[in-house]
Amino acid sequence: MAVATASVTDICAGAKRASRELGMLGSGVKDAALRGIADALVTRAPEIIEANQLDREAAREAGLSAALLDRLTLDETRVHAMAQGARKVASLPDPVGEVIDGFRLPNGLDVRKLRVPLGVIAVVYEARPNVTIDAAALCLKSGNAVILRGSSSASHSNAVLAAVASQAAVEAGLPQGSLSLVAGGGREELAELATQNGVIDLIIPRGGEGLKAALKGVATVPVIFAASGNCHVYVDASADLAAAQEIVVNAKVQRPGVCNAAETLLVHERVAAVFLPRVLHALNDAGVVIHADQRTRDLVADLQVRHATEEDWDTEYLALEIAVRVVDSVDEAVAHINRHGSGHSEAIVTADTGAAHQFQLAVDAACVYVNASTRFTDGGEFGMGAEIGISTQKLHARGPIGLRELCTTKYLVEGTGHIRP
Amino acid sequence: MAVATASVTDICAGAKRASRELGMLGSGVKDAALRGIADALVTRAPEIIEANQLDREAAREAGLSAALLDRLTLDETRVHAMAQGARKVASLPDPVGEVIDGFRLPNGLDVRKLRVPLGVIAVVYEARPNVTIDAAALCLKSGNAVILRGSSSASHSNAVLAAVASQAAVEAGLPQGSLSLVAGGGREELAELATQNGVIDLIIPRGGEGLKAALKGVATVPVIFAASGNCHVYVDASADLAAAQEIVVNAKVQRPGVCNAAETLLVHERVAAVFLPRVLHALNDAGVVIHADQRTRDLVADLQVRHATEEDWDTEYLALEIAVRVVDSVDEAVAHINRHGSGHSEAIVTADTGAAHQFQLAVDAACVYVNASTRFTDGGEFGMGAEIGISTQKLHARGPIGLRELCTTKYLVEGTGHIRP
Repeated sequence: MAVATASVTDICAGAKRASRELGMLGSGVKDAALRGIADALVTRAPEIIEANQLDREAAREAGLSAALLDRLTLDETRVHAMAQGARKVASLPDPVGEVIDGFRLPNGLDVRKLRVPLGVIAVVYEARPNVTIDAAALCLKSGNAVILRGSSSASHSNAVLAAVASQAAVEAGLPQGSLSLVAGGGREELAELATQNGVIDLIIPRGGEGLKAALKGVATVPVIFAASGNCHVYVDASADLAAAQEIVVNAKVQRPGVCNAAETLLVHERVAAVFLPRVLHALNDAGVVIHADQRTRDLVADLQVRHATEEDWDTEYLALEIAVRVVDSVDEAVAHINRHGSGHSEAIVTADTGAAHQFQLAVDAACVYVNASTRFTDGGEFGMGAEIGISTQKLHARGPIGLRELCTTKYLVEGTGHIRP
Repeated sequence: MAVATASVTDICAGAKRASRELGMLGSGVKDAALRGIADALVTRAPEIIEANQLDREAAREAGLSAALLDRLTLDETRVHAMAQGARKVASLPDPVGEVIDGFRLPNGLDVRKLRVPLGVIAVVYEARPNVTIDAAALCLKSGNAVILRGSSSASHSNAVLAAVASQAAVEAGLPQGSLSLVAGGGREELAELATQNGVIDLIIPRGGEGLKAALKGVATVPVIFAASGNCHVYVDASADLAAAQEIVVNAKVQRPGVCNAAETLLVHERVAAVFLPRVLHALNDAGVVIHADQRTRDLVADLQVRHATEEDWDTEYLALEIAVRVVDSVDEAVAHINRHGSGHSEAIVTADTGAAHQFQLAVDAACVYVNASTRFTDGGEFGMGAEIGISTQKLHARGPIGLRELCTTKYLVEGTGHIRP
């Protein structure tokens, strides 16, 4: 324990020193480093896959599920995809130095508000070794030193990935300490990272609720929690019902295990009798388990529909399951969403501009959709190139966390001997 | 205790309900409410001053210092100043609905990123009753419901001010619950407010270190801590020494008790022998106590100068005291500032564009000045009209916290039946 403890402190101190230099580098050096990382990943793929083999063997012996094993696995295609991801981040505009506001004061002082790096970002994650490279690329591009702490089940893979990336980064001109990996995957290291006030500027957990809870209990440095998404689609009285059905099925079925998938369908009572039998048969055909209120159940007596409880409205199934409810108005839909939603992505399907406006104004969420699937909430889809997660917090970043969200700001004020009268 | 407990919960629930409506109101209604509050303050000034009289009597009996008594005191001039403050906030542009980004995606989806209210903001403060109106005006203008919790020593004043403001706001069309005051000034109420997750979106403490520490220990809702300011002026080798002297004296003396006042002077060794005797005599004449390193002391043997310890570099005097050190380079000045500063406001005085650029790039602070006094870091000076404090945090808001900083954002996405392929 004592050794690991010393090492987290040393790693943090090194990252802090590196961050001072890194924050001042131009895009050219940073982009060259990311491309260098990409090249090194491709060249050293065999070594990476060999290390991954060790993790997979241990995982198999430990009896990990097939799904977890799949997440853990790196093959040539996946290593190349990581390299491609780093190249894509290199091609994005540099957020650092962007002037986001500026004005001349009445006294002649010139004020600019610039985007600058946060400093040191720690990313803690679970058994997905590809996060090592994704997170590193985003942090380095935004001028931040990055400290990675993966899961112990991916320790061999992460160690090689971090070594390959760190070496390539330094060769391209980034300071030593720009990218480092905390070796231990235990709760002690997590707690130590999470209390490095004044050294670590932000911790981002990427993982399940267990990881988030562990962090919540101990963190004294700022944390942005990646979101859970209890997302809704509301089909209004005026909706184009064919489009509505496509949106509902897409939002639920296209990739049910992700946070921007829909979990509850709300339907206006005026179209419920026509729409619900159609859409619920379509969902049923796609293998979706349906939990519905009594008004819905009365309309689809020929389908197996479970009785929705209060708990269903609050559940993020992340699976082929949906909760369904009939509402009497846009207001009732909004009230349901604001009460049960997690503030992630909410959609209305409507032809009525008034209903659309009301829904956009009243729904309290990171992303509010009109006539589109909730599945578009994604840094890649939003043109941010990549994301490190999606925030449902209201402070600092709300929605996809891309390069800009990994920055803070600084006011630069220039005078000619100005003093305050 | 049980009664007070119920009441904080009720107040919070009422604020949450009000915030849903308030967030959708146009500027017209909100501005009318602020002007209504201003008018009511003027009309009911005698009642306010009478209540304040009770607080002042109790304070005198409790033996409060003259400075605290002065802060507590409301007279006609100060009540009118509060009204004027509310009118000024009414005249500012509404941050709500401001489009801060927007683009059309390749698939035709239209995305806008809008500024929207946070929801419910709690402001906790000490014995300055005028904060009641300042904080209320900023929160309401930015579409947020506000919960105020003042000090028990100003309880009579705060109760009347909150009642006057709340009544005027409701008469002008704001929902009930938009503005409320937590009656008890105890630590129990503070702890209860600070743990209203999902109800209170932000707590802002305005007060001393004791209040901040109390909040830090218990808060589970987001907090933005108003800053402490250990600010520096660095006089470079190339500085116009007459301008430098004016800036140093202004930054230290003009209002020493505030967070943007300078606490340490750093001087390049090439100008130290000429500049330090002049500036330190000027500071000495202004009554400033000087703590200096040995190199400085050797240059001003005729002055009473204390020996600066490591502790002095870290001290925010908030008084007529200054720490002074000679440095060999811009780099050494930057390193000193990044090590000892609190990331608030830092200034360089220089005629050298290279030195200015290096200082701006390398100093890690909310506001970095070239050839100007640190005293300009202020929402009013920056044209934000008013501020609720100055943040030295890096997340969400860095620098003066004005109307925009009391908001979050929301993505509005509009399609025509878009689904994700």
